[in-house]
Amino acid sequence: MLITPDASLREALLDKINHKTKPPGSLGQLEDLALQLGLIQQTLTPAVVRPSLLVFAGDHGIAATGLVNPYPQAVTAQMVVNFIRGGAAINVFCRLNDIALKVVDAGVNMVFDPEVLDSPLFYNASIARGTRNYLEGPAMTARECQAALDKGASLVDELQATGCNTVAFGEMGIGNTTSAALIMASLTGIPLASCIGRGTGVTDTQLDTKRATAARALSLHPVRNGREALQAFGGFEIAMMTGAMLRAAENGMTIIVDGFITSAALLAAHDMEPAVLDYCIFAHESHEQGHRRLLEYLHVKPLLRLDLRLGEGTGAALVVPLVRAAAAFLVEMASFADAGVSQAGEDAAAGAAGKEVAP
Amino acid sequence: MLITPDASLREALLDKINHKTKPPGSLGQLEDLALQLGLIQQTLTPAVVRPSLLVFAGDHGIAATGLVNPYPQAVTAQMVVNFIRGGAAINVFCRLNDIALKVVDAGVNMVFDPEVLDSPLFYNASIARGTRNYLEGPAMTARECQAALDKGASLVDELQATGCNTVAFGEMGIGNTTSAALIMASLTGIPLASCIGRGTGVTDTQLDTKRATAARALSLHPVRNGREALQAFGGFEIAMMTGAMLRAAENGMTIIVDGFITSAALLAAHDMEPAVLDYCIFAHESHEQGHRRLLEYLHVKPLLRLDLRLGEGTGAALVVPLVRAAAAFLVEMASFADAGVSQAGEDAAAGAAGKEVAP
Repeated sequence: MLITPDASLREALLDKINHKTKPPGSLGQLEDLALQLGLIQQTLTPAVVRPSLLVFAGDHGIAATGLVNPYPQAVTAQMVVNFIRGGAAINVFCRLNDIALKVVDAGVNMVFDPEVLDSPLFYNASIARGTRNYLEGPAMTARECQAALDKGASLVDELQATGCNTVAFGEMGIGNTTSAALIMASLTGIPLASCIGRGTGVTDTQLDTKRATAARALSLHPVRNGREALQAFGGFEIAMMTGAMLRAAENGMTIIVDGFITSAALLAAHDMEPAVLDYCIFAHESHEQGHRRLLEYLHVKPLLRLDLRLGEGTGAALVVPLVRAAAAFLVEMASFADAGVSQAGEDAAAGAAGKEVAP
Repeated sequence: MLITPDASLREALLDKINHKTKPPGSLGQLEDLALQLGLIQQTLTPAVVRPSLLVFAGDHGIAATGLVNPYPQAVTAQMVVNFIRGGAAINVFCRLNDIALKVVDAGVNMVFDPEVLDSPLFYNASIARGTRNYLEGPAMTARECQAALDKGASLVDELQATGCNTVAFGEMGIGNTTSAALIMASLTGIPLASCIGRGTGVTDTQLDTKRATAARALSLHPVRNGREALQAFGGFEIAMMTGAMLRAAENGMTIIVDGFITSAALLAAHDMEPAVLDYCIFAHESHEQGHRRLLEYLHVKPLLRLDLRLGEGTGAALVVPLVRAAAAFLVEMASFADAGVSQAGEDAAAGAAGKEVAP
């Protein structure tokens, strides 16, 4: 069973944070983040080491029906190629913020060319060429679901072996906001209408069809837990993220959760091992309406609210500099004592490096 | 008179943003930011070049009375020394995000030692050793106010001469949240009670005294414009920021506004030249209650809400990676046409780099 980080360093971390040359609490959420990083890494000097971002891509049987998505299913594979060629938003943000990017084929409906297969960015973990349509049965078999969880875990083990201690998650899969909404509705009991959003580029009519389709899928698959929700609604990319997150937490790594779909993967992980939450940083609250409700359900506070709704891990990549900042202030800032700075209510300390002029 | 950036590139910028390989609008506030950067820099390929952060420090006559602040006035000078030694939060964040830091003595009540005076980080622009107590008269003379505005402007000219095109603002001055609140109340007409917050580390009793003191100051100095507000309530650091912001806009540079006090300096600048707003990025909404009201008054949306309330420019430094990200996606991302990715409602483009498997 996954356990929460040992809390014995908590007081020492708070003490260190509170003696930095700033009014107590004045770095707001970065102070909570510094405490969390210290606890996850079990140190008073946490650091973000070789951060990696994994984009898990997978296709969804439902997407071929066109009932839930305005983009053709082929866009999943086209975007994988765009990732490999370096032209997507996630490439730009990872380059900018010095994050190692890996693109994981968790189950894309495409036989890729060598350009993709031989790329150092590409990781082949394909379970099948897309999930099955969940209107006709579960999206995947129990065996496929386990294979996705296991491959996610082994990928994270490989990352850790390279020295990485922080792993960010992103995804690409046409139709996967609907899978995320179904996982959310089935595990939280929140009405489907509050879980379903527009996704990317859906018109009003398409939104009605998407809602009706999701309602039918939900009624077809009564699920009892996270594993069953993943199996019923897919996709492979979501299940693989769930497995990767659970292993990252077991390994004592920091998890950076991106938007709605990534949060749904975390919800499934949380259903299996509630302590996984203690290892998670929530990058942003997306524009997708279900995401805010899901973050509230988990009682977590995201760092950014920029109305992002792209996926790919873009929010997670954008938040890495803030995570580095939280670790850095804890490690590098002077304390009041170091710097000879007076605290609230104190008289001025003996003049450091100068002479005060009489008022 | 300061003019708003030429809008003739607007359509071309929007077109470029909308043809990137992402659903339209899916990068949220970063898309607005990319557009703004393109207009400020008058280019389809904006960049953040040699970003600099100026921390303006000044002392306030009122602070010697202890009526508005729990920290002794000497903390302003102590923190300047901390900045010069590299131990403050702003040092950490500027190092991390590759921002050049300058500490500007706009009027600190201290004769600094050579350790400070000779530091490459230090810029001596001192108008006087602190403002006068605004309960006994205006905080500064009209001549001092003009000198502060002018020195701010010449500092920004020097920065631009080094190639810098982005200037972030921060401040340090014990007692300056009260000056900021007074500037805000006098220029916006918003009741003082909504402008005054706790500042840093104020107890309930201290807050009552701070409010009563501010109300008295406001009644003593009826002001008609931004310049008069700066002169009446100070401080030198705020007036110098105002002058620097106006010149940055004239020079076509991007301005990054930090928290409440920096926003009050911008409010005074906005009163003199409304177009200055078009050159400003608002880094964050601080925990200080007046700040949210002030941002609403200006009809602007900050990028971060992390409950920061430290000042020093910390929020501005933390937001620089997001500004870089906005410029970078506009410049570096592939378009749908470049990448052979299908758009919403299109059929799949001819298979790029692989063969789709029949469903």
